Amino acid sequence: MSTIAFVGLGIMGGPMAAHLVRAGHTVRGVNRSPAAVQRLVEAGGQDGGSVAEAVRDADVVITMVPDSPDVEAVALGPDGIYAHARPGALHVDMSSIRPDVAVGLAATGAAAGVRVLDAPVSGGQAGAQEATLSIMVGGEVDAFAAARPLLEVMGSTVVHVGPAGSGQTVKAANQLVVGGTYQLLAEAIVFLRAHGVDDEAALRVLAGGLAGSTVLDRKGAAMLAGRFEPGFRVDLHHKDMGIVTAAAREQGVALPLGALTAQLIGALRAQGDGGLDHSALLRGVERLSGRPVSGD
Amino acid sequence: MSTIAFVGLGIMGGPMAAHLVRAGHTVRGVNRSPAAVQRLVEAGGQDGGSVAEAVRDADVVITMVPDSPDVEAVALGPDGIYAHARPGALHVDMSSIRPDVAVGLAATGAAAGVRVLDAPVSGGQAGAQEATLSIMVGGEVDAFAAARPLLEVMGSTVVHVGPAGSGQTVKAANQLVVGGTYQLLAEAIVFLRAHGVDDEAALRVLAGGLAGSTVLDRKGAAMLAGRFEPGFRVDLHHKDMGIVTAAAREQGVALPLGALTAQLIGALRAQGDGGLDHSALLRGVERLSGRPVSGD
Repeated sequence: MSTIAFVGLGIMGGPMAAHLVRAGHTVRGVNRSPAAVQRLVEAGGQDGGSVAEAVRDADVVITMVPDSPDVEAVALGPDGIYAHARPGALHVDMSSIRPDVAVGLAATGAAAGVRVLDAPVSGGQAGAQEATLSIMVGGEVDAFAAARPLLEVMGSTVVHVGPAGSGQTVKAANQLVVGGTYQLLAEAIVFLRAHGVDDEAALRVLAGGLAGSTVLDRKGAAMLAGRFEPGFRVDLHHKDMGIVTAAAREQGVALPLGALTAQLIGALRAQGDGGLDHSALLRGVERLSGRPVSGD
Repeated sequence: MSTIAFVGLGIMGGPMAAHLVRAGHTVRGVNRSPAAVQRLVEAGGQDGGSVAEAVRDADVVITMVPDSPDVEAVALGPDGIYAHARPGALHVDMSSIRPDVAVGLAATGAAAGVRVLDAPVSGGQAGAQEATLSIMVGGEVDAFAAARPLLEVMGSTVVHVGPAGSGQTVKAANQLVVGGTYQLLAEAIVFLRAHGVDDEAALRVLAGGLAGSTVLDRKGAAMLAGRFEPGFRVDLHHKDMGIVTAAAREQGVALPLGALTAQLIGALRAQGDGGLDHSALLRGVERLSGRPVSGD
């Protein structure tokens, strides 16, 4: 059993940390708002106090925070993970951040004697709660081998994809595909409804054919019902589309659908829907087509 | 057991007709090239001769041909289905055609005493061979009830979605989603490779998360291997994107990703790849990004 400092107990991190507690590990939670720490304590975890206190005797430090600056804020500087973790500790950053920032963290961690993995996840809130996340891991192979048993407590697909930063690169590709799939499904729903087709029957038959997807299975019914509580917020997907389009530009890769999807997610946010689930792309297509807006 | 005239024994129609033979029905095949009829005969079917001959005593006429004019050519006119089918016969058009043409055929058929269903399919060549097609059916409910046992011989998801033309409308939405999903996957693959990530591991982890899709499950490995033999030809998907974009315009629906996907499929065809499988959208993204082109 390991002693784990878990930083970031939000919609995703909360249930992930609770799974580690249930698996028998000592989990010290750190979170900006104390209510989430309290929930972890009630589930059998510990209040880790500050980052510096929580990581001091930890074998493993897991971070699950919103964005690149948030990871840097908890990892770097005199109060950060690398200043206080014990030599040989493992830092597994499961946030979705820029691949180049992940590469930088791996180098800084190594200089401080901390082995760093980037291990972002896909599968959403349901995947976190059901411990069925897909986890894409970048970093050194022996560090991956050490982290793997813990990752398998939180996810059902745990794959090493390459050196430091690779996990984030794969996550960026994942967000490109997921964002585009939501937009395609949104366009299909508006199209079907405009033609007066039975939309529930139609989605059932789409799901059974080549148009089938995890997005459709998990979110199709909620989209038809106009329910857009997050889940995964448009604001965060907007951040992720910034990562993937920037990373594509750096390598000279053209992403026609990815770039357009990024624009449409940005527009949805500008329309005031940033706090809704990303399936709210349906609302954007409805506005664009002058249709009644689901959920209004 | 029914007597069935089956017109169009191509990549899709051939295995579909063979399933009906195996289920014990009398199947009379009609096809432009005689080799396909010969294969059906070897599988236990009959050579139906001309359309007029084949449909004369048939309970059910099934058509599975490439495009709207092809269906009209076999259904209408003095040598067509409606001139020769017996009163009360059922015509199930499983081709993917324009919804407005399907509506017109239903009216013309009804005037000739033939009940017409539009019942296009999704699931591709594999779905046809494995009898796991998704079949979306438009038309009258009692005609659907009569056709259902036959459709369930060919597909695993058989759904009535509305009145005449509705099946084609759902198929159009299906093709929008499928085309866009291929393009998204193509962009993701080029992005991952440009970053030097292990592409097979990456697709495995994408498949396990929210980016998972039937397209990825069925065609991801072939795309990575640069194998683009059809399957479903770019030329046919180009035709289908014309149907969905026109039908969207008619109803005032904006399809940003659908319209761009239509352009990219059209471009791929202009580049000479019309005869390849639609997964060859990967080649279009590679050309656009100045990368080596898979399969060359």
